[in-house]
Amino acid sequence: MKLLNEKVVSNLELDPLFHPRAIAVLGTSENTNKIGYLQLMALLDGGFEGEIYPIHRSAKKIADLTCYASVKDVPSQVDLAILCVGIEQVEKCLIECGESGVKTAIVFASGYSEIGEAGIVAQQRLKDICDQYQIRIIGPNCVGLLNTTNGLMGTFSPGLTHVPLNKKREAGFVTQSGAFGVLTYIAAAQQGLTFNYFVSVGNEADIGFSDVIEYMLHDPNTTIASGYLEGEKNPEKLRKLAKYALEINKPIVIMKSGRSTAGSRAAASHTGSLAGADQVYDGFFKQTGIVRADDYTDIISFSKLFMSNKMPKGRNTVIVTSSGGRGINEADRCESYGLNIHPLSDNVKQQIEKTIPSFASASNPIDLTAAAAITHPQLFLEPLKALVHDPETDIIIFSEFPMSWDENTPELQEFVELCKNSDKFILVTTFPLEGMSSPKGISYLEEHGIPFVKGDMNPVRSLAKLVDYREAYDKAKKEQAKPKEIYKSNIRHLLLENQTLSESQSMEILNAYGIRTVRRKIARSAEEAVAIAESIGYPVVLKIDSPDIPHKTEVNGIRLNVQNAQQVTLAFDEISKNATTHCPTADIHGVSVQEMLAEGVEVIIGVTNDETFGPVIMFGLGGVFVEVFKDVSFRVAPITRQDAIDKMESLAGYQLLQGVRNKKPVDQEAIIDVLLKVSELIQDYSDAIKEIDINPLIVYENGIVAADALIITK
Amino acid sequence: MKLLNEKVVSNLELDPLFHPRAIAVLGTSENTNKIGYLQLMALLDGGFEGEIYPIHRSAKKIADLTCYASVKDVPSQVDLAILCVGIEQVEKCLIECGESGVKTAIVFASGYSEIGEAGIVAQQRLKDICDQYQIRIIGPNCVGLLNTTNGLMGTFSPGLTHVPLNKKREAGFVTQSGAFGVLTYIAAAQQGLTFNYFVSVGNEADIGFSDVIEYMLHDPNTTIASGYLEGEKNPEKLRKLAKYALEINKPIVIMKSGRSTAGSRAAASHTGSLAGADQVYDGFFKQTGIVRADDYTDIISFSKLFMSNKMPKGRNTVIVTSSGGRGINEADRCESYGLNIHPLSDNVKQQIEKTIPSFASASNPIDLTAAAAITHPQLFLEPLKALVHDPETDIIIFSEFPMSWDENTPELQEFVELCKNSDKFILVTTFPLEGMSSPKGISYLEEHGIPFVKGDMNPVRSLAKLVDYREAYDKAKKEQAKPKEIYKSNIRHLLLENQTLSESQSMEILNAYGIRTVRRKIARSAEEAVAIAESIGYPVVLKIDSPDIPHKTEVNGIRLNVQNAQQVTLAFDEISKNATTHCPTADIHGVSVQEMLAEGVEVIIGVTNDETFGPVIMFGLGGVFVEVFKDVSFRVAPITRQDAIDKMESLAGYQLLQGVRNKKPVDQEAIIDVLLKVSELIQDYSDAIKEIDINPLIVYENGIVAADALIITK
Repeated sequence: MKLLNEKVVSNLELDPLFHPRAIAVLGTSENTNKIGYLQLMALLDGGFEGEIYPIHRSAKKIADLTCYASVKDVPSQVDLAILCVGIEQVEKCLIECGESGVKTAIVFASGYSEIGEAGIVAQQRLKDICDQYQIRIIGPNCVGLLNTTNGLMGTFSPGLTHVPLNKKREAGFVTQSGAFGVLTYIAAAQQGLTFNYFVSVGNEADIGFSDVIEYMLHDPNTTIASGYLEGEKNPEKLRKLAKYALEINKPIVIMKSGRSTAGSRAAASHTGSLAGADQVYDGFFKQTGIVRADDYTDIISFSKLFMSNKMPKGRNTVIVTSSGGRGINEADRCESYGLNIHPLSDNVKQQIEKTIPSFASASNPIDLTAAAAITHPQLFLEPLKALVHDPETDIIIFSEFPMSWDENTPELQEFVELCKNSDKFILVTTFPLEGMSSPKGISYLEEHGIPFVKGDMNPVRSLAKLVDYREAYDKAKKEQAKPKEIYKSNIRHLLLENQTLSESQSMEILNAYGIRTVRRKIARSAEEAVAIAESIGYPVVLKIDSPDIPHKTEVNGIRLNVQNAQQVTLAFDEISKNATTHCPTADIHGVSVQEMLAEGVEVIIGVTNDETFGPVIMFGLGGVFVEVFKDVSFRVAPITRQDAIDKMESLAGYQLLQGVRNKKPVDQEAIIDVLLKVSELIQDYSDAIKEIDINPLIVYENGIVAADALIITK
Repeated sequence: MKLLNEKVVSNLELDPLFHPRAIAVLGTSENTNKIGYLQLMALLDGGFEGEIYPIHRSAKKIADLTCYASVKDVPSQVDLAILCVGIEQVEKCLIECGESGVKTAIVFASGYSEIGEAGIVAQQRLKDICDQYQIRIIGPNCVGLLNTTNGLMGTFSPGLTHVPLNKKREAGFVTQSGAFGVLTYIAAAQQGLTFNYFVSVGNEADIGFSDVIEYMLHDPNTTIASGYLEGEKNPEKLRKLAKYALEINKPIVIMKSGRSTAGSRAAASHTGSLAGADQVYDGFFKQTGIVRADDYTDIISFSKLFMSNKMPKGRNTVIVTSSGGRGINEADRCESYGLNIHPLSDNVKQQIEKTIPSFASASNPIDLTAAAAITHPQLFLEPLKALVHDPETDIIIFSEFPMSWDENTPELQEFVELCKNSDKFILVTTFPLEGMSSPKGISYLEEHGIPFVKGDMNPVRSLAKLVDYREAYDKAKKEQAKPKEIYKSNIRHLLLENQTLSESQSMEILNAYGIRTVRRKIARSAEEAVAIAESIGYPVVLKIDSPDIPHKTEVNGIRLNVQNAQQVTLAFDEISKNATTHCPTADIHGVSVQEMLAEGVEVIIGVTNDETFGPVIMFGLGGVFVEVFKDVSFRVAPITRQDAIDKMESLAGYQLLQGVRNKKPVDQEAIIDVLLKVSELIQDYSDAIKEIDINPLIVYENGIVAADALIITK
């Protein structure tokens, strides 16, 4: 496996960054307000386990550490240099590092690509130095890097260095926004989750977002790789990593921002105009099994849930509450995120009823009433005893928990034993009140693998994401390795450069990849048109054929349901006249005479080029469904058979393919087949094809036909 | 105005409850664990301004207050009795209260309607006592009532009595869930919002949810009436109150739970099966201008925003941030809730650029960078100076705020002055970190009417709701008082009891209300059918007509596009045969011969009976749009012209009515007309009509025709 090789290289290269034996701090300062001082103190206060070498032009000692005038003077092999210097000194320092054999560096300075042209040039110079000396850097324009398992506080930010550490540290976090990353780090720590790695990648002159994800995936002490992303520069790598992550069951959780800023883009094809950048990201995350965090809270909650080492077996959820109102609200929340609040069987209900007071309710959500919250906390045990044996229950949510139970409370010990011996996924949460929402027994629960997540972290949404993740994980295991062989011929000669191909040119390309298109032939005269019509059989359709007229209805260039020779002649003349009137300079190839297709379900398949991801394949229902409801889905090419199935099933109007109003289901296999063929086509000619629009494709109970197509070349 | 009379009565009646001069506490106890003791202490600790009379069989004094053996012995007029007694003593105590002329009471005891049949009977006895003695009660099975402006702590709940009060108290809160209400009360107090009234209405034996809303609307010191609702028992009253609330600009904000628990209901008509209870509530809230809170956080945030006494003029929003990442995320959030992050004009951008560092960004979201957060807080002032004069900006959100500014900081004073003299809606918020998200200057901001809401209270969502509210308020002012006169005839004789009427019977009723239906006549023989067809003109449609066959396609009882006499004869025979074969016992009126309607846009209008609201009117697009996409909207009858317009515009597929794919827009006035006529019809005969289903109605560029209809009577 190719990734395995990459792994060795990558981890060897980044290991000195995360596990340095010796660090040099360039730009150390005696001024307690300067970042050079703050950085040094951060390492000392953090209890960094290796050697620390402050670099200072003149000082002998700072904070009891011997200073060196240059990194070249340091007696040890320096693994990591931290550059606390302004932009004007960065290059000089970095060269010195290179000359001293330093392996990695963090560059805090700003003034690079974020300020525009001049900065981009300066940043390229940094990159060149890195390449020359084989030095790997984080930054520039970043907040730095933390490894909280060895005291490596590679940052000057007081927001990071003053946060108490929690015991468990097995989720890594990489961020493209320094400030937002710091906020997330603190918020997570306040919820009991200290990231083992925190990496602010800044401008990514060298090490990028997915490089860090890769490191975390390969790191044996990391269970989850999470991140805050504004734009991925190496989607191909991230895609491979995501596949690998699913294989080894290490979730990648990413909060991707900029949903709204995609804006509209000019695009000649229908598909292009529908592909907002965020929709493409969404499709990418779905097809790769990357968990998409809607907010920073999801990163925290999902990590805590996943670290319990259990996964929900399904979506059937029971809520146990001490407030009827709260129970209803949590039930609403569960269902809004796709969890199922199932009715309990009579048997289970009766078992519970026997053990709780008559005014409590044994229906789901199970309401133990305020009595449980205040005077009778032992009631919280009772439903659990029955539910752990209920085959219909997958998830149990305690929306409140006794505040007074601690590790010495026998009921809490019994609660934990019941949970541990059960295959149910059990979550404890509380209503978020300041200073009043952390039951005493939390740490005991967490030590035994029962996750506790406060209500303001939206644990229910993350729970639903965990179920989604589990499904993606299961699917990945089943996924067929190879799509079936596709018959195809070489079409290079058809792909003239930078053209909008005519309908018949486009159709020819589809044919070459085994996609059935409507029967048609170009007529150059009315007589020829009649002859073609008679060979196809009436009724026929006549369409103007010209690469200069992509939107034929606009020039009145189509005649449907043409019934006989006389009508063909008339239609030919009219269409030709309309075209020359509307587009006097158009290069007209003739009039395409086509079979009139029977009614079926119209769908649309398209390819557009995404700035980030390259070719992206769209599928949707045709006609008004695409125009009015924008009911389409995207996946990044190439797609698998499972991607094709997911694309269809994720449509709001999927039912239309399954048959409604007494109609038979359409040939979904035929749709999958075309999707995979289009995927193959765009993969083979991604250098030459810019956009494809097959609209409409008509699907029948058996078979599928492309009725129109438009291909734009690069 | 009728409501004015009701007001006087209602406020006179409930005033003793909220503003009692003398309170008797029945069931007072010396045992410090009993609610009779807790209640007494709550009044004393709360500093209640009036007289307090503990009622105790034997004690002379409790907590230094003279006790009385019975409420009858109290020397003053008791306005409010608080019954801290078990269910077995409630009736006796209440009668004593009644005999002593006590005006209002709170009943905490449980064991009433919430436990089923026996409890319902006991509760009715309470209600009878109330009626007999003209006493108004809150409860039973409730947590009690608070008036935080006069120290009336009518509750034993430590969750309520131990919460510090905030200065501003002008939002009232009524709840159908005691425990969830208490949590909301505490959460609000922690965010600086103390409700002036807190009312747990319990089982609502007498005073109900909307009675309390009414009291709050009439109370001059209440600015907002909010509540937590599980099910409204008097929607007609709530609707009137909502209308009144819009007139006086006092928002009603309600969190309605149970979105998911509506479940499916058996219903004969299409409309019935689509009307989930929650969708009907949603329609009700939209048409009445009631602000729907999605969570308790919305109640808190909305109230804080509204209490600023400003309303946003529109949706154009600028974000000012010190973290680029946070700015992008808040922009995403704004757009997801329907606020518009507009590009700033060059002029405004240049003004801002002049005053901020070069590495900061003057584009929206405006990023002042970490420099503003840490070393240069005065930067927060600069964009504000330009934005307050920008005519294109309606809202300014500061997603962070200097932590160090306090009331003595000149910059904060300048900030406040700028805000106060501007018509922009300005919101200050922060990222929610424990102990780190409350800038020092908050109280100074709030004193000057600039709302501060922490990030975990989702202020952006509430801001969007405030814009919605403003629009509802503006629309209400414009609303025409009366719909146009509708021609109608008496149809009482047509409404046979408890029937599914045949298509032609249903059509006749629609005609009587001036709704144009397809031309048709019942034929009892093939000859008659041919004669009718010839008078209508070919092509025609033939349909079986029988009240026992509501779904005609299922028995193969429809023939479309019948072209001539021969085909009519054949169709008549086939349809008749199919009907008798499939439904041998059906009462067949004949075969309806109808004009074949031209193609238009199919819509559906229906009426169903909602358990809570009574007749509810549905509108949607027909065919697959209703079947697959469930693209429908509901409003409670009767509806106004504006309701009808909103119904149309709220459809996902509204564009189909405006004309797509070169089609002309359809006659929306005709749709409004039918909606108002159906509303009139169901209002006139709500005693007799259960459901109406007009499906499809065909709308044309001009005009509308009901092609099929089904009416079910009660």
